[in-house]
Amino acid sequence: MRGALRLVRFRGAAGGGPRLGLEEAPGGDLVDLSAAEPDLPRSMREFLEIGPRGLELAQRALQSGQHRVSRGAARLLAPVGDPQKVICVGLNYHDHCREQAAKVPREPLIFSKFPSAIAGPFDDIVHPQDTSELDWEVELAAVIGKRGRHIEESAALEHVLGYTVANDVSARDWQMRRNGQQWLLGKTFDTFCPLGPAIVTREAVPDVHNLWIRCSVNGQRMQDSSTQHLIFGVPALVAWVSRFVTLVPGDVLLTGTPAGVGVFRKPPVFLKPGDEVQCEIEELGTICNRVV
Amino acid sequence: MRGALRLVRFRGAAGGGPRLGLEEAPGGDLVDLSAAEPDLPRSMREFLEIGPRGLELAQRALQSGQHRVSRGAARLLAPVGDPQKVICVGLNYHDHCREQAAKVPREPLIFSKFPSAIAGPFDDIVHPQDTSELDWEVELAAVIGKRGRHIEESAALEHVLGYTVANDVSARDWQMRRNGQQWLLGKTFDTFCPLGPAIVTREAVPDVHNLWIRCSVNGQRMQDSSTQHLIFGVPALVAWVSRFVTLVPGDVLLTGTPAGVGVFRKPPVFLKPGDEVQCEIEELGTICNRVV
Repeated sequence: MRGALRLVRFRGAAGGGPRLGLEEAPGGDLVDLSAAEPDLPRSMREFLEIGPRGLELAQRALQSGQHRVSRGAARLLAPVGDPQKVICVGLNYHDHCREQAAKVPREPLIFSKFPSAIAGPFDDIVHPQDTSELDWEVELAAVIGKRGRHIEESAALEHVLGYTVANDVSARDWQMRRNGQQWLLGKTFDTFCPLGPAIVTREAVPDVHNLWIRCSVNGQRMQDSSTQHLIFGVPALVAWVSRFVTLVPGDVLLTGTPAGVGVFRKPPVFLKPGDEVQCEIEELGTICNRVV
Repeated sequence: MRGALRLVRFRGAAGGGPRLGLEEAPGGDLVDLSAAEPDLPRSMREFLEIGPRGLELAQRALQSGQHRVSRGAARLLAPVGDPQKVICVGLNYHDHCREQAAKVPREPLIFSKFPSAIAGPFDDIVHPQDTSELDWEVELAAVIGKRGRHIEESAALEHVLGYTVANDVSARDWQMRRNGQQWLLGKTFDTFCPLGPAIVTREAVPDVHNLWIRCSVNGQRMQDSSTQHLIFGVPALVAWVSRFVTLVPGDVLLTGTPAGVGVFRKPPVFLKPGDEVQCEIEELGTICNRVV
């Protein structure tokens, strides 16, 4: 079995470009993988393209006890910054369907963000002047580790390297009432896809379909559910998407949000500059983004 | 003024990886830019990130008369294979709105394909088993050469490197009746975005809003219009999209299709294996893709 790893990207205190690293424990100090293995690429996508050999080098670096970086001296970046795809799923929690009186879909509903929307786990979310309905959506994201098309559901997890926390930030006016009802624009403003803090490999997650998942705004719990309420689980989604497109290492698949988003509250609640949005998933970690 | 260039990617007769090159004339022989300047990247996106200095080296290679490759010895690839974004526009020709009795949009309607959909100018289009309504759409595509956000319409063309021909291949059943009416899946099956043959720089195109644009299926003319019938022209589209997202070098913007697509014919006509689809735009060239 591959070992459990918590892969990150970060910038060091001295600045410089992005580096790959490993979280020693959830929220703990880092190991500087780019220092331990200077020949490895520094793009997570390119690193994942190497396959198992890259992960072995990462495991060795983690166990070496060398090249440690204290958490406070690192600025964490989105663990994948340049995926070929950011694939998103709508209406994929039973409780989220109920809160909007929507029928449970018989097939996954797929949409997308551009990779330019990706932000780091503690970066700011920029409130566009163009929206008055900015909303949060905590989501479990799967990161693809192995290329594939027409993947069988029974083999789908072999294509998943691990998981991370995402916030599928949404401008509801643009998503629901503008752009001919095509969701893309309302979902893909710059900074509308905070990701992180780490890609936690499958081996570290006993059951991805039984994790609590939460979102708080300014300390007030807004979403509080479990991935057991997913309508289509990770294997079904990977199999479904691969009917249409070739999945490649680094692709990010956001699996949908549970109940508790702002737009379906009575009255609706939207984000404003100064708000702080915290998204957490059991075993995976916490991301926290200020709206500016 | 920058010189006129026709940038291509190709594989040589001896095989090997993709190379950058230049078309000497429309449909003519190539100059092997990767041979003339071995230190340049071989990804068009990375080449465009270099900016004006890269284009100067390309101009010099073209004028040198060296490193020529006969057209027959090269297999042309999509001129950009790995853009961060493939941005698409719906309902953007007056004649295409009329053929479906749709109102002329007051704002551009933006959707997307994943970069995995890109195919070469003479590659096969793979007919998915999952659709029975495969359709063609010839489109003018703009390729971004310079990063920008919140770009003014008056400055928009400075961000456009040049133009190429695209086929926005579409599975109408998936686009119009499945996936919750989100167009993405019906637009993004693998091979649904043939591009090429070259990126023709702006300097070589006297008026991008006055080019004939045509599509033939098995030699029968199906679309025959002019880019003067675009509802939103290239500067307006670049400005619009950059309200939402940061545009980066290599991004591809498909500007919409004119009248004559299969789904709105009476009776409708769809593509089947064996069909040959030829898309042509004045000054830019021809792409031709067989359906398999």
